[in-house]
Amino acid sequence: MARVFNFSAGPAMMPLPVLEEIQAELIDYKGSGMSVMEMSHRSKVYQQIIDEAEADIRELMGIPDNYKVLFVQGGATLEFAMIPMNLRKNGVFDYIVTGTWSKKAASEAKKYGKVNVIATSEDRNYSYVPDVSDLPIDDDADYVYICENETIHGTTYKELPNTKGKILVADQSSMFLSKPVDVSKYGIIYGGVQKNVGPAGLAIVIIREDLINPELDKSVPTYCSFATHSENGSMYNTPNCWAIYCCGKVFKYLKKLGGLEAMNKINQEKAAILYDFLDNSKMFKGTVDKEYRSLMNVPFVTGDADTDAAVVAATKAAGFDNLKGHRSVGGLRASIYNAMPKEGVQALVDFLKKYEEEHK
Amino acid sequence: MARVFNFSAGPAMMPLPVLEEIQAELIDYKGSGMSVMEMSHRSKVYQQIIDEAEADIRELMGIPDNYKVLFVQGGATLEFAMIPMNLRKNGVFDYIVTGTWSKKAASEAKKYGKVNVIATSEDRNYSYVPDVSDLPIDDDADYVYICENETIHGTTYKELPNTKGKILVADQSSMFLSKPVDVSKYGIIYGGVQKNVGPAGLAIVIIREDLINPELDKSVPTYCSFATHSENGSMYNTPNCWAIYCCGKVFKYLKKLGGLEAMNKINQEKAAILYDFLDNSKMFKGTVDKEYRSLMNVPFVTGDADTDAAVVAATKAAGFDNLKGHRSVGGLRASIYNAMPKEGVQALVDFLKKYEEEHK
Repeated sequence: MARVFNFSAGPAMMPLPVLEEIQAELIDYKGSGMSVMEMSHRSKVYQQIIDEAEADIRELMGIPDNYKVLFVQGGATLEFAMIPMNLRKNGVFDYIVTGTWSKKAASEAKKYGKVNVIATSEDRNYSYVPDVSDLPIDDDADYVYICENETIHGTTYKELPNTKGKILVADQSSMFLSKPVDVSKYGIIYGGVQKNVGPAGLAIVIIREDLINPELDKSVPTYCSFATHSENGSMYNTPNCWAIYCCGKVFKYLKKLGGLEAMNKINQEKAAILYDFLDNSKMFKGTVDKEYRSLMNVPFVTGDADTDAAVVAATKAAGFDNLKGHRSVGGLRASIYNAMPKEGVQALVDFLKKYEEEHK
Repeated sequence: MARVFNFSAGPAMMPLPVLEEIQAELIDYKGSGMSVMEMSHRSKVYQQIIDEAEADIRELMGIPDNYKVLFVQGGATLEFAMIPMNLRKNGVFDYIVTGTWSKKAASEAKKYGKVNVIATSEDRNYSYVPDVSDLPIDDDADYVYICENETIHGTTYKELPNTKGKILVADQSSMFLSKPVDVSKYGIIYGGVQKNVGPAGLAIVIIREDLINPELDKSVPTYCSFATHSENGSMYNTPNCWAIYCCGKVFKYLKKLGGLEAMNKINQEKAAILYDFLDNSKMFKGTVDKEYRSLMNVPFVTGDADTDAAVVAATKAAGFDNLKGHRSVGGLRASIYNAMPKEGVQALVDFLKKYEEEHK
């Protein structure tokens, strides 16, 4: 059977050429006589895999030398705790809450200090990003936290917040590697890779070296200290070797496509196909204010829950998968990450157009 | 090229028929039109994968109904912290230290309470397991902890400790699914899967339900609470979906081979080939007291570090991989987990015999 267009919010599509390479190497990686899944993480052959992955993401993102790249398990959920545990000095944390994921992060941080929600878009169900040009940043704030692309609500930042000199921490999970970013503006960028890069079970943490504190409170698990991972090349213990390998393949693929500038251009084009349709449709409309629309996650509704459900069922029957919106927004959501081909978005729009015509 | 005999302590060999199945399904899992790596963990097709994996390991190990099976990231290293954080009542933890891994676990537990080392084999470099029939168990001990098979030192327990009614917690990482165990004797059994089952990045935790405490100290990260994983079917956040899938394949393979009784028989036979050779060799000898020898990890030495190194180099040149012993024991170590075929062990012994004859 053909591969489906999978609009899942994550785990999500991976590039077919990457999957084909992985498949070809699965039993015998480059004459090593073993699968990557079977390799000692201490072996030369594996060390080369992780070293290349790091070098390639450094090149793709233009990561400055004073930043470390860490490969950590536990996903964003564990990062929600690790960030306050590792950055805590005054125990005051400023959060901008623009959706489910920044809200969860703020809630977890409360375990470790005082959380100030310095801006939120909760008043209109997180359908926009608040003005972040002049926020009441706390003088004692250890950092300012954002989720730069909210997967469920489909919003993204147009510009980064003015942190007034405080450290900026960004969860980029659902926009990771989707466009160029200026890493030097952040203290920490992290992302679970299972949306825009590879298989689940791995977060990539890009952290400015001076923020790595080897002298944490003793209640912090050894695994949860960034220093543990940093001092041991992400191999204090056995990492998710397979996910690192797969992500490394995706990094090389993105480089070949022209890097993040090229990806951004493709992503802009893809999103425009869908948003243009939504803006001209009488049946469907996007749920997010235009200027804050995510290029990656596109929620939309008909305005009637039963109709929404019927459309989801129809897309599924037509071979489009995972278009049901998250229950907190309802309706439909098309996640169109890097690996979703333009033809997939076009085919979905064609289908929705036809559906609309047939159900006027 | 042919697949090598890979004696790595972990990650380690997986059964070839399993790898072949995974390879065949890599791009399109059973007509779903997508790779398992691309599936939403909330989809029906993935739910079936994780449900079957759990059902199969329950059947293999005979896990009673009052035990939960959890799929957690972060490896044994995170478990070292999670166990005291989750089981802490009196804040007193009894540890039996029989090698590197139980020592590390005890060290981590000190962050969360008072650790009593109630027995250790440190006096003879962890080359045996101390008598555990009548230990000075603390009246207030929240649990008694063992590493049931020490990967580096190559020891295993002949019988479980008499915990005098206290909860027994066992790290079974390097013996996981190698033989039948009576789960009801344990409060918690856990194992990183990257030695005896599948790819790295996943620990399986088998925990008696009454030990799951949803009311932990607030300093415990949400991810580190067993209740978080238990209450959400190991899907509070996106799990390591790929590793769970691969482990599920291995579970089915083990069932087909006859289950853990059959595996134990094969493992006994494999280990006997190597230990018989060592016991009759004039050049090589095992480092562990006979009655505590692991069936999985077999450290051995020549008594001379240069000769050890020469032998390791010769094995490598002959196509046997990862036989270098851990630096804390020196010499060589052959890890002969479930997936190492008997022919691999026999071929290694044949090679070592020949080497010995040629270097008399």
